[in-house]
Amino acid sequence: MQDIKKYVEEHKDRFIDELIDLLKIPSISADPAYKNDIFKTAEAVKKRLQEAGCDKVEIVETPGNPVVFGEKILNSSLPTVLVYGHYDVQPPDPVDLWDSPPFKPVIKETKIHPEGAIFARGACDDKGQMYMHVKALEYMTKYDQLPCNVKFMIEGEEEVGSENLGWFLERYAEKVSNDVILISDTGMIGKDVPSITTGLRGLSYMEVEVTGPNRDLHSGLYGGAVANPINVLSKMIASLQDENNHITVPGFYDKVEELTVEERTKMAEAPFDLQEYKEKLDIGDVHGEKGYSTLERGSIRPTLDVNGIWGGYTGEGAKTVLPSKAYAKISMRLVPDQDWKEISELFKRHFESLAPKSVRVKVNTHHGGQAYVTPIDTLEYQAANDAYEEAFGKTPIPQRSGGSIPIVSLFEKTMNSKTILMGFGLDTDAIHSPNEHFGVWNYLKGIETIPLFFKHFAKLKKEE
Amino acid sequence: MQDIKKYVEEHKDRFIDELIDLLKIPSISADPAYKNDIFKTAEAVKKRLQEAGCDKVEIVETPGNPVVFGEKILNSSLPTVLVYGHYDVQPPDPVDLWDSPPFKPVIKETKIHPEGAIFARGACDDKGQMYMHVKALEYMTKYDQLPCNVKFMIEGEEEVGSENLGWFLERYAEKVSNDVILISDTGMIGKDVPSITTGLRGLSYMEVEVTGPNRDLHSGLYGGAVANPINVLSKMIASLQDENNHITVPGFYDKVEELTVEERTKMAEAPFDLQEYKEKLDIGDVHGEKGYSTLERGSIRPTLDVNGIWGGYTGEGAKTVLPSKAYAKISMRLVPDQDWKEISELFKRHFESLAPKSVRVKVNTHHGGQAYVTPIDTLEYQAANDAYEEAFGKTPIPQRSGGSIPIVSLFEKTMNSKTILMGFGLDTDAIHSPNEHFGVWNYLKGIETIPLFFKHFAKLKKEE
Repeated sequence: MQDIKKYVEEHKDRFIDELIDLLKIPSISADPAYKNDIFKTAEAVKKRLQEAGCDKVEIVETPGNPVVFGEKILNSSLPTVLVYGHYDVQPPDPVDLWDSPPFKPVIKETKIHPEGAIFARGACDDKGQMYMHVKALEYMTKYDQLPCNVKFMIEGEEEVGSENLGWFLERYAEKVSNDVILISDTGMIGKDVPSITTGLRGLSYMEVEVTGPNRDLHSGLYGGAVANPINVLSKMIASLQDENNHITVPGFYDKVEELTVEERTKMAEAPFDLQEYKEKLDIGDVHGEKGYSTLERGSIRPTLDVNGIWGGYTGEGAKTVLPSKAYAKISMRLVPDQDWKEISELFKRHFESLAPKSVRVKVNTHHGGQAYVTPIDTLEYQAANDAYEEAFGKTPIPQRSGGSIPIVSLFEKTMNSKTILMGFGLDTDAIHSPNEHFGVWNYLKGIETIPLFFKHFAKLKKEE
Repeated sequence: MQDIKKYVEEHKDRFIDELIDLLKIPSISADPAYKNDIFKTAEAVKKRLQEAGCDKVEIVETPGNPVVFGEKILNSSLPTVLVYGHYDVQPPDPVDLWDSPPFKPVIKETKIHPEGAIFARGACDDKGQMYMHVKALEYMTKYDQLPCNVKFMIEGEEEVGSENLGWFLERYAEKVSNDVILISDTGMIGKDVPSITTGLRGLSYMEVEVTGPNRDLHSGLYGGAVANPINVLSKMIASLQDENNHITVPGFYDKVEELTVEERTKMAEAPFDLQEYKEKLDIGDVHGEKGYSTLERGSIRPTLDVNGIWGGYTGEGAKTVLPSKAYAKISMRLVPDQDWKEISELFKRHFESLAPKSVRVKVNTHHGGQAYVTPIDTLEYQAANDAYEEAFGKTPIPQRSGGSIPIVSLFEKTMNSKTILMGFGLDTDAIHSPNEHFGVWNYLKGIETIPLFFKHFAKLKKEE
């Protein structure tokens, strides 16, 4: 039997090349123009899963983008690990802020990644992290180190809210049945500070449209007399947060779980340097809800952010227009026990009520998902803990992330098993941003750690 | 001698065809990509002026777009009319809201224009209205009806603030010297309600940029903890107008000329139907400064409108981004005796002061111009009045417009002569909007009325 560390060392160049091939396909789920690339990516993932040792791999059609499903069943009496990941990526906009083209991966050294990092859209989120599992399987199959059954469910709509995954889970309940769900789509605190994500925020993503007059008007002839939808939208958005940065949507905080003093004290012990945080982002100050720390604002508290706004003339030069319409994409990050559908409804009702008679407002819900928190006194968490200790020589820190994987709470509900979030990205990896990258060291360390989870999980299950 | 009415009737098809040729060239001054079309349009105007009877026409270079200057000097002892117009046009955005391509002119009937209207960017503002003067000259030359000297100054930067016209006027003071400036770049109340514009608002056009973090961030990981420049910009814009829609920039109203009760009473007598106004624009209500009527808000009061806003992800679908930057184009319409440079400076200072420490703000002045009001007890106004009475059989109504021709107040200052604004557009012509058009009836009526101004002006000057 060959040691996983040694195996990774011997094959790392190929592991990187294979990931780079996958990163070259622009599988942007938000834009229908890339439909073909979605299918090409699904095909590529299928092929790689077959090569890595899956007995059966199929591309399962859904009303939206297909799910790649693969499995290697050793024995039905053994426990089953379901690996979830996604092959779709965020749009690369704004493209002109990338130092290299988003779909032409390059490896460059950075201060944090002296071993090099792969720069490309999806490098970390989630092609790179998903592919670690494929390579871990390759090792376990080749050296007979797979101690239990494994299934792969790699979807193509995570970046647009996993719209059809509920449909898929309902239809294929038996196919996906498992004993634990394993996901690498989060981060860790630092290369020398391994951590396991134990909480995710929920999400409610809305789009609003404010219509004033029925056509664009000359701002000289009508300005001052007819409501300008941009001015009105600005006022409406501004009113969504009060002077303490509390969100003003009535009922918004009703179900928000308040942490105990003990829990908050424990959070405050996590390594965090505010000065460094501000310097890295080049900001004069942080900004958020009164009464909470930056770490709390970014994880255990709900938020409201405008993700995009547009209206009127946005080209070069000047146009004196009073536009007919203005738009914004607004999303809220939610925490336990807020219900995303209820929050979306509260938002919609409130936003509509803000509109003066001089405009009309449309509010649409894009997508959403529930927040998620997992306990750490479970067998599954223990297995992950043991894997990190073996790989890193350090006990991982449980941490709640501000991000969302909307589907996770649905998994637990429909599949009745725990989810383990083993993320290997860093918060400097610029996921969803220009110049997204994934450290070569992190990528290989992930491939090394995953088989150890399988080992400890199977062992603990046997002892159970 | 042939009657002008008859001449127009005989040649109207050609007049329309020639205008259509001019409208096909996309002379968009706001976008440097159309530089070539700017030159092409200047050449076309030069050629038409020569054909119409100018003795001398030249394309005069400036640091920006060239000015087409033409003249027909009968005798230096006669008075001189200087016709001002512009051959540049507004950008056509949003192009998808046009029913026909903006630079492929078509003639369609509308409810207001049963004789047809020419649909194209620049049809009314200002190629159509400028070209009326060229055709009026053609008639006057051909039938020896030109009673005085005439000069043409047709510029290519009106839609971007006539940046270099001051330079031109200073350099060529003698060349442009005149006894009255005649401009058709405004509108009239209705086809059966001729009017002469006696006031224009000034303009201060600004562009602002709000920068939060130094790169786009993941809204899950940073949302709530780092200032979102779109949310901040919205709050800043919202605060620029109070609950009574008064502009909050300190000092903004200090120099605003307040009209007397008598003047306001007279304004209120102008034909105006609020219900019809709202129906035409399909708005539930008007919206503006407390204490003033819709007509007042749109003409004698200063305003603040956001003409464009953008930031974050504005494509299809959803992107959970906390953007690095957000932008807005904001313009203010000014009234006597506000000074546009002073107002721009007050705005800049105030807007910068609104920024919280968590963001950085840049404020740039695009361009601007002074407001303008002309008296009606002058010889020049009398000549225009007489021309309208002869052409329309009705006395024209003097009216103050909400629009701006920033250069007009500079004309009076540098050239020491009065300006007469004989506009033939209607406020439904959608200038600066999709589907801009100019009624065929209005175009031909303009060609008919202009020689009458020349006649009455020369006559009154002789009698003076």
